[in-house]
Amino acid sequence: MSISPYDFIRYKRLGKSADPKDIKEFIQGYLDASVADYQMSAWLMAVCFNGLAEDELVAYTEALIESGSRFDLSEIPGVKVDKHSTGGVGDKVSLVLAPLVASCGVAVPMVSGRGLGHTGGTLDKLASIPGFCTDLSVDEFKRYLSKIGVAMMGQSADLCPADGRIYALRDVTATVDSIPLIAASISSKKIAEGAQGLVLDAKAGNGSFMKDESKAEELARTIIKITHRFGVKTTALLTDMSQPLGRAIGNALEVAEAIECLKDQGPEDLRKIVLELAAEMLLLGGRKDHEQARKEAEDALERGRALEKFQEMVKMQGGDPRIVDDPNLLPQATWKIKASSERSGFVQSINAYQIGMLAVDLGAGRRRKEDLIDPAVGFRIYKKIGDEVRKDEELATVHANDESKGLEVAEEWKGCFEIGEEPVSAPRLVIKRIT
Amino acid sequence: MSISPYDFIRYKRLGKSADPKDIKEFIQGYLDASVADYQMSAWLMAVCFNGLAEDELVAYTEALIESGSRFDLSEIPGVKVDKHSTGGVGDKVSLVLAPLVASCGVAVPMVSGRGLGHTGGTLDKLASIPGFCTDLSVDEFKRYLSKIGVAMMGQSADLCPADGRIYALRDVTATVDSIPLIAASISSKKIAEGAQGLVLDAKAGNGSFMKDESKAEELARTIIKITHRFGVKTTALLTDMSQPLGRAIGNALEVAEAIECLKDQGPEDLRKIVLELAAEMLLLGGRKDHEQARKEAEDALERGRALEKFQEMVKMQGGDPRIVDDPNLLPQATWKIKASSERSGFVQSINAYQIGMLAVDLGAGRRRKEDLIDPAVGFRIYKKIGDEVRKDEELATVHANDESKGLEVAEEWKGCFEIGEEPVSAPRLVIKRIT
Repeated sequence: MSISPYDFIRYKRLGKSADPKDIKEFIQGYLDASVADYQMSAWLMAVCFNGLAEDELVAYTEALIESGSRFDLSEIPGVKVDKHSTGGVGDKVSLVLAPLVASCGVAVPMVSGRGLGHTGGTLDKLASIPGFCTDLSVDEFKRYLSKIGVAMMGQSADLCPADGRIYALRDVTATVDSIPLIAASISSKKIAEGAQGLVLDAKAGNGSFMKDESKAEELARTIIKITHRFGVKTTALLTDMSQPLGRAIGNALEVAEAIECLKDQGPEDLRKIVLELAAEMLLLGGRKDHEQARKEAEDALERGRALEKFQEMVKMQGGDPRIVDDPNLLPQATWKIKASSERSGFVQSINAYQIGMLAVDLGAGRRRKEDLIDPAVGFRIYKKIGDEVRKDEELATVHANDESKGLEVAEEWKGCFEIGEEPVSAPRLVIKRIT
Repeated sequence: MSISPYDFIRYKRLGKSADPKDIKEFIQGYLDASVADYQMSAWLMAVCFNGLAEDELVAYTEALIESGSRFDLSEIPGVKVDKHSTGGVGDKVSLVLAPLVASCGVAVPMVSGRGLGHTGGTLDKLASIPGFCTDLSVDEFKRYLSKIGVAMMGQSADLCPADGRIYALRDVTATVDSIPLIAASISSKKIAEGAQGLVLDAKAGNGSFMKDESKAEELARTIIKITHRFGVKTTALLTDMSQPLGRAIGNALEVAEAIECLKDQGPEDLRKIVLELAAEMLLLGGRKDHEQARKEAEDALERGRALEKFQEMVKMQGGDPRIVDDPNLLPQATWKIKASSERSGFVQSINAYQIGMLAVDLGAGRRRKEDLIDPAVGFRIYKKIGDEVRKDEELATVHANDESKGLEVAEEWKGCFEIGEEPVSAPRLVIKRIT
């Protein structure tokens, strides 16, 4: 290294920008163990305070990418477009969106993650489909993508391994919520998987990781800046996560709701966000007009082409395609417990974060990396912000495999809803478009 | 732990104060390996940015102390008073001061450190005295102290072991220069060694670790605050380290100069600082009047009682007492190389930091912990700030055991002096007294 790890850390502590070459050597040093865990964590903490300048960010992202291999998707025709959500509660958008966009002829190579904290992960949802395999080799991923235009896989060991190691370290040193570190982590994987266009669903609100809109916007702008430097065009939608998306929370329940949505019988908010994101993906895929792109997506949904593509994908990846016609083939919970309202009024606000944590309590998510997930558990919720509710009316159904845990959660559920006398309007779903 | 290490780190990152109990558990966790190195370094970096509130500082210091054993010096009569210097170039004060104060009847239990970076350490200087042993057991330390009122030892493994481990981690993660961390590290050792009074020589200027006075003063005030909470009274003198202290730099050369000073034939600046610090130590030891205390110290120096005590200490700790009469018995360097001035004028400034680093180059200090020290090498310097110098006049003599290295250093030496035409006055040695 042209400077010592010590000086490298010290400069960041002092707020100086590092030479891009030194950043790469520091990450490389971490991989070959000449930079220790405790040095990396000290540097990460200094970054949390002093940030990264644009050139540092690009070098850091490049180092993450270069730690593994970059997928070569050049043999697949057309522009490859992916979507990434910064994470929320009830966010099953990818399950609908990826086949929908693929059914319009734009290839969607999707590398997804597992659930994190109070938020669910696409991989965990897919795992609730009997037989569905996300543990693909790069060759399988490319073959499926060539054949049907869409494939979904988990992060392979060879995709940005430095990001995986650094993320694990951030996760135990309170250095996760740093915009440059999050932005580089997301960007590196999307660039490495071979996407040429990216639509970012940047969520803001109590159910997301960014409680306030300005942070979510800053994250979106940072990702746009980084990906642009690697030739990837990103469009971001800043969307509301002040309440769960749709009406289902929990892995199999969300797959069932995604199928409803693909049959154009799903909840309105999910449909709307899917179509908005699909329009953006089609624009990145070469369409010229936003209104027409949206119409094209709507058409694919209404005419069942998206559903057909979803079924094709399930089959291709080893899943049971009959779940499309019979969602009861998905795992079902033993206990269904009502959570009722203690008063009449209008839903003023919903604590989506707490709902996400209650889902984790039921077993829908992990407290620790090694925890097993129960695919069947979760919630169906009947009231959203602005809805009127009467005393004793059902707010949600808790799906549990442990009755006492389910009863406990149903009791706690009531605390997630604030009900007041004033009528309120539903929050705006798409807050802002950022390019 | 009542909170997880993760949350403990996160709170500090967010600028919140921790519960004193949690700080102790975090340090304890580090010692029993339930808190990892990388978590400790992340927390230390967060402390560098967000500091420690007074109660946190006290709890942190207490945790460092409680990680080992606290010396019980109650059997030694009177108030035990120690001195600590924050470190400088040519700082051999302890060698003169400890026996001087002991010769006035105030016991001086001194636990010293090795050299650090560009600064020398008392332990390394003592090691240049043939036979002198600083590797004492607590019992030996107490016995010597009882017998002659002064003893000097290196930090035993049992004295604040957590501080030793954390210091080693800070040293490789760029988290050394944090005022609360430095203050706690110094205070913990002085409290644990059993001192009841402490005089702090807080150095400011390019040869010290705190380049500016306000930082040095903040450090002093922090140490005063902490030690007070443990019943130790501290007085600090803020002193100048914009040039080396005295005229000798290097271990044996500094011991020789300390002996000169004990014979009252040493350089004026060293004598002055010794007497000022001695007066403060005597005040902490029970004297009532500053002027009288200073006179008492001066008297002990002039009448040779301090020298006698020094000789007694050398003998007690296994050293060759004949060095007092014949300093040539100390290690001598083979080569003495002149460094001359390239121009005439007045010494405007001296780069004491660089001089310290050149001494390390010669072998007087360590680049790495495992480096061996050459006790004989160093400098004698003839010009200080404000002195007039003629072209080709000697600025210093380089004492080296490797001729080519010595010649190289002699050449570089010239760059350490800024010589200009304007007469300048010498810097004020004692800048401020802080209690």
